[in-house]
Order: sequence, then structure tokens, then C-alpha cells
Amino acid sequence: MKLDHVIEAQQFDRDLLEVVFNEANEMEKIAYSGGSDILKHAIMATVFYEPSTRTRLSFESAMIRLGGRVISTENAREFSSAAKGESIQDTIRTIQSYADIIVLRHYQSGTAKLAEKIAQIPIINAGDGAGQHPTQALLDLYTIKESFIKIDGLSVAMVGDLENGRTVRSLAYLLAKYSDVKIVFISPDFLRMKDDIKQHLDKHEIPWEECDDLREIAPQVDVIYMTRIQRERLIERPGDYEKARGKYIVNRAVVDSMKDKSILLHPFPRVDEISPDVDVDPKALYFSQIQNGIFIRMALLKMCLIGYQH
Amino acid sequence: MKLDHVIEAQQFDRDLLEVVFNEANEMEKIAYSGGSDILKHAIMATVFYEPSTRTRLSFESAMIRLGGRVISTENAREFSSAAKGESIQDTIRTIQSYADIIVLRHYQSGTAKLAEKIAQIPIINAGDGAGQHPTQALLDLYTIKESFIKIDGLSVAMVGDLENGRTVRSLAYLLAKYSDVKIVFISPDFLRMKDDIKQHLDKHEIPWEECDDLREIAPQVDVIYMTRIQRERLIERPGDYEKARGKYIVNRAVVDSMKDKSILLHPFPRVDEISPDVDVDPKALYFSQIQNGIFIRMALLKMCLIGYQH
Amino acid sequence: MKLDHVIEAQQFDRDLLEVVFNEANEMEKIAYSGGSDILKHAIMATVFYEPSTRTRLSFESAMIRLGGRVISTENAREFSSAAKGESIQDTIRTIQSYADIIVLRHYQSGTAKLAEKIAQIPIINAGDGAGQHPTQALLDLYTIKESFIKIDGLSVAMVGDLENGRTVRSLAYLLAKYSDVKIVFISPDFLRMKDDIKQHLDKHEIPWEECDDLREIAPQVDVIYMTRIQRERLIERPGDYEKARGKYIVNRAVVDSMKDKSILLHPFPRVDEISPDVDVDPKALYFSQIQNGIFIRMALLKMCLIGYQH
Repeated sequence: MKLDHVIEAQQFDRDLLEVVFNEANEMEKIAYSGGSDILKHAIMATVFYEPSTRTRLSFESAMIRLGGRVISTENAREFSSAAKGESIQDTIRTIQSYADIIVLRHYQSGTAKLAEKIAQIPIINAGDGAGQHPTQALLDLYTIKESFIKIDGLSVAMVGDLENGRTVRSLAYLLAKYSDVKIVFISPDFLRMKDDIKQHLDKHEIPWEECDDLREIAPQVDVIYMTRIQRERLIERPGDYEKARGKYIVNRAVVDSMKDKSILLHPFPRVDEISPDVDVDPKALYFSQIQNGIFIRMALLKMCLIGYQH
Repeated sequence: MKLDHVIEAQQFDRDLLEVVFNEANEMEKIAYSGGSDILKHAIMATVFYEPSTRTRLSFESAMIRLGGRVISTENAREFSSAAKGESIQDTIRTIQSYADIIVLRHYQSGTAKLAEKIAQIPIINAGDGAGQHPTQALLDLYTIKESFIKIDGLSVAMVGDLENGRTVRSLAYLLAKYSDVKIVFISPDFLRMKDDIKQHLDKHEIPWEECDDLREIAPQVDVIYMTRIQRERLIERPGDYEKARGKYIVNRAVVDSMKDKSILLHPFPRVDEISPDVDVDPKALYFSQIQNGIFIRMALLKMCLIGYQH
Repeated sequence: MKLDHVIEAQQFDRDLLEVVFNEANEMEKIAYSGGSDILKHAIMATVFYEPSTRTRLSFESAMIRLGGRVISTENAREFSSAAKGESIQDTIRTIQSYADIIVLRHYQSGTAKLAEKIAQIPIINAGDGAGQHPTQALLDLYTIKESFIKIDGLSVAMVGDLENGRTVRSLAYLLAKYSDVKIVFISPDFLRMKDDIKQHLDKHEIPWEECDDLREIAPQVDVIYMTRIQRERLIERPGDYEKARGKYIVNRAVVDSMKDKSILLHPFPRVDEISPDVDVDPKALYFSQIQNGIFIRMALLKMCLIGYQH
């Protein structure tokens, strides 16, 4: 079987998640043994309408480690045919002549789905606006799974700008597939998680609560998932940005208050919401997340282009 | 024999065009059988002073499919040594130390010729200002040839902004090499084909006429070559842009009026001059053009770097 | 042994310089025989906070000629996580998950050292602000050595904007390691070489003098190292820029006045400080410098990633 597309976190059921995680585990071995050539003749196009050097380089590194090749545009919005008025559909239909798989980043929610509808080659959503960022959610969950083995029964605190945070949305969708999971949303009251996610959790009988005090919750949960207050998404609300920034800081005291086997995650980049002296703590797994991002993306590229056993 | 450079459409005589088309046909087979490594140790530098993601990615995909490698700059005008006052000659002499072939896009007509004069490695012109875009013309003609086999005797309508359209100029030069070809220029009267092309056609005894009514001509020709009204080349004439835009729209009615075996081409990107419901019509070959662009560029890279039989 | 990092010219002692030059010589043979695959599974990340297409493409070409792969960002300052407030430390720690070696260009002096301190993979400094540009200095010295074989005893004139010129600083550090070398600084009095370099030369008993007349010195030295008056570093001193520009022009008369076996170097790009009719003179070695830059960078990449015999 082959993966057709990677568009949103919900598309993966528990069985398929297991496959992805097993493939990622294989990829870890391949990466540490010096790479592979299984994608030797494949071409990946990274088409980014919104710059994200981090995500782009992660995908490109994943592709290269499997022997594949990359063609790339970092600033498609300004430089490409889009500036001349071309539709996303025409752009996708053009680029599918150049490549075997497209990694698409767009500033508008829903664009990945639009692209998927007309594409004859696999599309991987590398983030679309305030919509989804499914590969980030997969690497987040993979990192959680590597620590706890069993995801059922975990309690997860998501902290920061939950209104605009694409990664927490995608992760919440994935967690809703497991049993006895509990989610705590910690945010300023003006940056709360949106209702669609809360309704989704209710529908899947995942208990959740809202809270604005990180220090109270920190000792109770298995996972703290910090996020950055995104200035670029609060441009028209500078007052909110100033109020939100600095409200939640994970420092040594917070980490020391956490449970023994608990972990601290962050999708990065961070500004000052986690102080660097925490980096050496074994609970701090955000650099493992970055590494796992390579393995997850290698796995997805392989599953789209070569296939997998189910 | 090797191709020295690809600078302008006129440099190809009918015999050489046959060679290019035969090589492109071979490349089609190579591409569909998973690529080749014949250019394994070759490096192509794409040096673009004017962004054109579409053309750049097409060349890069072509190079990669033959096993070659790419170094690339998408915005040489702003970022490179050019901003520090370096001459194009020095830039070319520098980059020829880094690469085996240079694909050059420039905003000024004539730059490719300047580069060719001093370069010790092959230069491929990927468009210079309002000058030429020879690889586009070759892929256009290749697409025509694939449909009709014989180019002699065809009637071709070129539609849109013929004054600023680089692709129609290059294609006109190529068509002038064939017999009994007839060209109809369809444009608003303020965006007419320039005199140099008309004189070239006269010299080669290619009959041409001008007309401003697409619906009248559509049923009579074998090829309709649509082009976009380029807002970016009409910045100082916004009134003309508004008047020209929307004047020529190919919709289902127009396509239905076309002859049975006729074809509809467009160099892309399009804005609204061809309505998307026409895309599925067998006459609409603009997505084949894009695909053929890869094969033509693979052929040219191979002919420059490895050579060909004449 | 492996090179840990390439941060500043001073880190190379005479023995290690010999190793670098011998390796570069080997690389020259490899490059002319069609490249190699010794770095086949290695990934180089070029992380440029300040655009420098020339330096970036030179490194990328070097990596590719050894079979390695490249991931790249040309405008990290504006596009990357840096714009979101990420520290250089976090950026380096992220990118080291994606690559095996990082080539770093930064606008601030000292950044390469900061990066080196936390990186677990090799960092190569590709220029940091007005600080250093060690690979340029190595290729400069390699070009000198290829001409004279023995560097001891040479007299070198450095000409132009010595206050802001990164390349002359790095080269001065390297020359200070040899015996009987003499340096003449030729600049307008408001763009003189800074005191730290002069003190370094004094400490190593390298005689130096300052002068503002190129024509007087040209017939006396073995090497003239021209540099460009950098408008971009004199933005706040436009008067100085105009005064400095055009003060030192190497034309045919100057070259003819030079000693028989002397050489003329320039790190490029040039504007008008060397007139193009001098290019064909055998003393003009600036295009050899560019070529040598590839070989030196190939050598450094190999020494960092594979190692070398001492």
C-alpha cells in the first residue's frame, strides 16, 4: 500500500499511526548507518508560499538521506507565478510535471486539501495557515510514544497561544484517537483553543479542561507541550502580544515541580518561554523532537513513494 | 558534436531542430523509465536575475533526471555581487569556475549574448527581458510537432500581448523556418507584434496578418497560441492593461468552434484567458507543453554537455 | 585526524597550512578528473544570514564535486526562525539535526565562535561581519604559494578599504606565520587597517608600513592584493565612499610597472578598481583565486568530514 497524501492529522487511525512509527524507527537506523538510496530517482518539490526554513530543511534533509533529490522554492508567494495571478491548481498541475511528490506550505488554511483534490502525485501538507501541520503532530506524538511507549492514559498540558497554534490543533486531533487521554489547555483567556477542537474532543469523549496557571498544572501532567506566542499572528493585537508574552515561562523551578517521568516538548522556535538552562534536563525533549522530525518525514516520504506493509 | 550555447531560437536550423526533437523523444523514454545518470558528475548553475520559479524548477528537474547536480540563485539581481556593482562578465567568469553549464535568466534583452561571448562553458538563455526565451519556443514547437508530425503548412494564431510577449517572438522565428506556414497575430491595437518580427517573416516569405477578433479566426487555424496580458510589463500603462485583459478569453464556445484536429497552447502561467473548464478538452495541450519542457531541456543539457550525432 | 571547525585564519599553523594546501592540490586533480563520491552520504547546510551568492555557490560546488548533498538558506536573517526571535544557538542546534556540517555566514563579528561553542558538528565560518573570512584567506595564500612556492620573504601590498575589509584582515593573520614577510597597507587615511592587526604583526615581528600611493609601491612588491571600496559598509559615510572610490585603479600602466614575477590578486567582486583590459595579463590571478576557492573548500570539507594525515 501507498499513502496517497498527508493532509491532516485526522487521516491517520491508530493502526496507521503504528505503521508510521515503526517506519520512523526503521528510518532512525538508516539515518545512523549513513543513509540509503531507496528514493534514488525520486524528486521532491518543496513549494513554500510562506517561508519556513526549519520545516523546509527538515523535509529536504529527510529526502536526501533516502537518496532522493530536491527542487525548491522558499518564497513562492512573492516570486512565483502566483504573483502573476496563477491559481494554486495550475501551480500544482505544473509542478507535478517536475517532481514525484510535493511538500506544500501555504499561508491559507485549507490549501493543502485544494491541492490534494487535483494532484496526481502525493501532496504533503507542511502547514497551511492556522489550519494544520500534520507532520509536526506526528513527530510530537512519536516523541511522546518513545518516552511512554503507551499513549493511552496520558495527561497532556498544551500551553501558550492555543488560538493561533497550528501544532496544538493537529496534536489534539491525534491524541483524540487514544483512550483515557486527558488534555489541559493553558492559555491567556484571549488566546484560548477554538471550539472546533473542543467539540472534536467531546465527541471522542476525551476529557479536557482550561486553566490559566501553568505552575498549578505542571506537577500533575505527563507531558507539557509549550508553544511560542506568535507575534506574527498577533500583529493587529500588540497589546495581547505583550500581555501573553512572558506569562508562561518554563524555568528550572517549573521543571523540578514536574513528575519524575514527565516530559517537556516544544515545536520550536522558542523565544523566551523555556529558559535555556533547562535544556540539559532529561525531561527536556525538544531537541529530540527536531531529530524525530527527520525520521517521521523520511517515513512519510517512503510510505508515499514506495509504500508500506499494513 | 556538442551544442555550444542556446541563446536564441534562430540559431536552430531545421536539421538541428530535428535532432533536438529526436533527443527530446529519447528523453521522454528515459524520464518515464525512472531517470538516468549520464550527467552524474555535471553541475548546472541556474543564475536568475529575474525570478521565474517555473522555468528554474523545470531546468532543475531536467538536470536532476539525468543524474546531474544543481547550484542555484533565484534572485541574483538583489542578492548577488551584481548589487555590489559587478559586471555580468565577471559574474559569468566566476560562476564558470563553479559549474559546467549556466542557465541564465536576465531582465535585459541581449544579456545572454553578452554572456555567451565570454563564457568558456555553455550558456542556456532562460529568457532575457523582452528578448528571447528559446527553450520555451522549442518546447512549443515540439508540442506542435507531436500533434501534427509535419509543421509545414500549418496556420498558427498568436493571441494576447504580442508586443511584450517573449515566447511568441521566439516561436515566430522558429516557424519561419518551415514552408507554407501562416501566422495570424491577434492582439489589441496597442499591443501589436513588433516590426522586427514582421520583417523577419516577410524576408522568409511567411504570410502573416493582423486581426483583433479571436472568435473570427478560431475556426480557421490549426494552432491557437494564447498568452497572458502581462501586468508586470504594463505597469506604466494601467489603462491598457485593463482594456486588454478580458478581451480574449478562450472558453468552451471558442474551443468548440475550433477545427477538429486543432490544438490550444499557452506558455503559462495563465490568469483568466483560458477558462479551466476547457482543460479536459483533448485540444488543450498546455499541460503537455509543461511536460515537454522537461524533455526539451533534458535534450539540450545532454546536447551541450555530452553531445549528439548529426 | 579531523578538523573540528574552521573559524578564523589564526587557527592554522604553518604545518596545518601545508596539509590544507596539499589536500587542495589533490582536490584540483579530483575536480579535473570529473569529481569524486567520497562525501556521498554527507549533507552540508549553508546557513547565510547575509546573502553572498558567490561564497555560497563556491561551497556548494565544492561539496557537490565530492559527491555530497546540500541544503541551503540564502536569506536566513529575514526568512528563518531568527525573524521569530530564535537565538543563533537554537538555530545551530536545530540544523545540526539536519546536516553533517554547517557553513555559516553572519552579519555580526564573532557569531562563528558562538556557533562553534555549542555545535556538535563542524562549523565553517563563511564570513562574519567585519570579523573574518578564513576560507578566503586560505585560498588567497594558496594562490600566492602556487606562484612563488615559498611564502617566506615575500612583500605584499594590501590596497583599498582596509578598515572594513574582512579578507585583508584574515590574510594578514596568515602571512604573520611566515618569515621575512613585509606588508604595505595602501588606503585612504580614513580607511586604514585597524590597530589589532598592526599589533598582531608587531608581536610576530612582521614589518609593515602605511602609504597612500599605489603607483609608488606597485614596482616594489611581489603581491598586490586589491580590494573593493565597499559601498554597503560606508552607507553612513557617502562622502568617504566617493573620495575612496577611484583613488586606486590598477590599469595597464600599473601592471606594467610591477616586477616581472609579481602577481595581482583581488577577492572579487570588483567594481572599477581593476580595469578589465588587465585580465589577460599573466600577473592577473584573480580568476585563479576563484578556481582555487573551490579546491580549498573541497579540502576543508574533506578534512572536517573524513579527516587527514598529519
